Amino acid sequence: MNQHSTQASLPLAGLLVLDFSQFLAGPSAALRLADLGAEVIKIERPDGGDLCRSLVVADQRVDQDSALFHTINRGKKSFAADLKQPDDLARVKALVTQADVMIHNFRPGVMDRIGLDAQTVMALNPRIVYAAVTGYGEHGPWRDKPGQDLLVQSLSGLAWLTGNAGEHGGGAPVPTGVSVIDVITGAHLVQGILAALLRRGVSGQGGQVDVSLLESAMDLQFEPFTAFLNSDRTQPARSVENHANVHTAAPYGIYQTRDGFIAIAMTPMDRLAELIASPALAAQAGDAGTWFSNRDALKQTLQAHLVQQDSAHWLAALEPAGVWCADVLTWPQLTEHPAFTALDMTQTIHSPDGQAMQTTRCPIRLDSQRLTNSRGAPRLGADTETIAQTFGLPQLRTTTS
Amino acid sequence: MNQHSTQASLPLAGLLVLDFSQFLAGPSAALRLADLGAEVIKIERPDGGDLCRSLVVADQRVDQDSALFHTINRGKKSFAADLKQPDDLARVKALVTQADVMIHNFRPGVMDRIGLDAQTVMALNPRIVYAAVTGYGEHGPWRDKPGQDLLVQSLSGLAWLTGNAGEHGGGAPVPTGVSVIDVITGAHLVQGILAALLRRGVSGQGGQVDVSLLESAMDLQFEPFTAFLNSDRTQPARSVENHANVHTAAPYGIYQTRDGFIAIAMTPMDRLAELIASPALAAQAGDAGTWFSNRDALKQTLQAHLVQQDSAHWLAALEPAGVWCADVLTWPQLTEHPAFTALDMTQTIHSPDGQAMQTTRCPIRLDSQRLTNSRGAPRLGADTETIAQTFGLPQLRTTTS
Repeated sequence: MNQHSTQASLPLAGLLVLDFSQFLAGPSAALRLADLGAEVIKIERPDGGDLCRSLVVADQRVDQDSALFHTINRGKKSFAADLKQPDDLARVKALVTQADVMIHNFRPGVMDRIGLDAQTVMALNPRIVYAAVTGYGEHGPWRDKPGQDLLVQSLSGLAWLTGNAGEHGGGAPVPTGVSVIDVITGAHLVQGILAALLRRGVSGQGGQVDVSLLESAMDLQFEPFTAFLNSDRTQPARSVENHANVHTAAPYGIYQTRDGFIAIAMTPMDRLAELIASPALAAQAGDAGTWFSNRDALKQTLQAHLVQQDSAHWLAALEPAGVWCADVLTWPQLTEHPAFTALDMTQTIHSPDGQAMQTTRCPIRLDSQRLTNSRGAPRLGADTETIAQTFGLPQLRTTTS
Repeated sequence: MNQHSTQASLPLAGLLVLDFSQFLAGPSAALRLADLGAEVIKIERPDGGDLCRSLVVADQRVDQDSALFHTINRGKKSFAADLKQPDDLARVKALVTQADVMIHNFRPGVMDRIGLDAQTVMALNPRIVYAAVTGYGEHGPWRDKPGQDLLVQSLSGLAWLTGNAGEHGGGAPVPTGVSVIDVITGAHLVQGILAALLRRGVSGQGGQVDVSLLESAMDLQFEPFTAFLNSDRTQPARSVENHANVHTAAPYGIYQTRDGFIAIAMTPMDRLAELIASPALAAQAGDAGTWFSNRDALKQTLQAHLVQQDSAHWLAALEPAGVWCADVLTWPQLTEHPAFTALDMTQTIHSPDGQAMQTTRCPIRLDSQRLTNSRGAPRLGADTETIAQTFGLPQLRTTTS
């Protein structure tokens, strides 16, 4: 059962996590706990299981499930149970009494109807950490709204922070191209779970941890959102061109060059004008007080100048001078770069039928060790009987899987 | 010293964290630890301290520092020390021997020269969790490159996932408008620190936790990046219009309506065509196999139809039918909405001179309690003498602050 090369010293070794959640936010939290050494058992419906099993992207399947499912659920086990069947529920409750953590992302009210709400579970097992992800919290007018990444990017104001303002540059709100809200919410859930486990080490008592996509989305934006809260509360404006952040002055942004794009972070505009030898920019950039208020015009002049030479030309002029700048790489460019190789950020995992696939590893290094785990995701219900025996679960009168 | 309303039961109560880091990634990790009950002491240069103190955005200052600094450093204390002065260093080392956690984000090698590298510190205090943030890891060709959010968005491939592809829709890589890499890296650092503290509860030994902006950026992208790794490794294409995710089929995206914008997540196109009464879309959307491959044309037809009516019209047609859709709100619209009020996501903090400002609270709820802390950020060095007395630090022969 030990696929980690260094599992004995992993910080969460010996902890049992029951994961009732589906898709990304909850399962990504359980994935991190697994990467850190916990035993994670997915509790799945016998008919189809985690809906992510059938969510195929880029036409990629591995073994019987989507490659996406393997990405998010590597290193876990699967226990099939129909929570509406009393026999299955009794087995799950027997597991719950032995678990350290449980995670679910059912909509508010569902676990109460099943009889696995926090109060009932914590009466069964006072040491358990009961963790839940919702879209918008358990109360309020949005409690039944679908909790989905793109929708929360849209409702939380995040989409209005990205992309260029104005008619010429577009002006539409732009979603971030990864499920950033799901990922940050999962990360917050892990923080809450680990903190509650630390408290248990002192008190002996478990606890309840709740996160929601919307609260986590506001935390993700806490820097500019706090500035908004303490302003006249008008929406902060994006740049018309090369927009990167509502509150940063020129040149902060990504610029087209003759053969690609470069990013330039906070830099004094007069110094920048000198380094790139642009008299037009130098003439415009005299007064530091205008680098924010006049950023659209300054960025326009800068862009017109930078597009005349290749990225390498500009980086050679700027980097040695200490300007914070960088190439804008595609994944093919990044993964072929020695700096990426030096990270050793990928690992090979193996599906139940022995297929190999590449994925990322846990981004946290412990005691200078990279944490890897070569086990792919389990087939639906693959571990049901082994788990029933290991944990002494009640016999089924009927078979559901 | 107790500004939390419920600090006694906070999970990290009693833990001492020394935070040597600046700007966002490291300090945001320390902020979360403070929100969860730890005592966090910023160790700052006597001349100016954390550079974020003078990083003013939106023209907002509170007390003697930027409002941004208060946002990130609320609830912490400040100890002024010049690590190049032997007396100051001796005091800091005396603190280090009593701390549970230390965090820094110096570039690789700096802490070795000061004599506060992991090996030295863990010899002084074997129970300490020594946590470090770098831009790109401690080795490799980018180890000395500036570790900054926009630059890592650009180098990690993230910027090429956002915004529309193609000449008409723009085609430039688009950075996400918040410091998403800093925030996720800080979140990973907290995870690593808490996991190492849990392990210490069993082993009695501290440990070393390392994260980097680039590794965290790859973890943030782990879903689509894994699909890339297992493909022919060509860069996945963005949609030409209404782009939201390189791997999702139409209609996934944000669409302009007559009076605003709406987001529509995964939805069968034929069903969508029926609900919005678009014969043109229905004619195009017959074959589910084309919803990805033909997404640009499908989105174009959908966009042309949706722009003819107001957002409310479409949401009234789609939401009751179970389609995952939402309005795209600005912050003024969001903060005036009862669903936001129901979250109770903001709190008032007070600066040393008694000024009040609004900010967000910790996004994690514990035992159904929201965690708030009304204390703003400390003035530079405000707690130096109190801390020196409380922790019995050696006397200074000379005064540096």
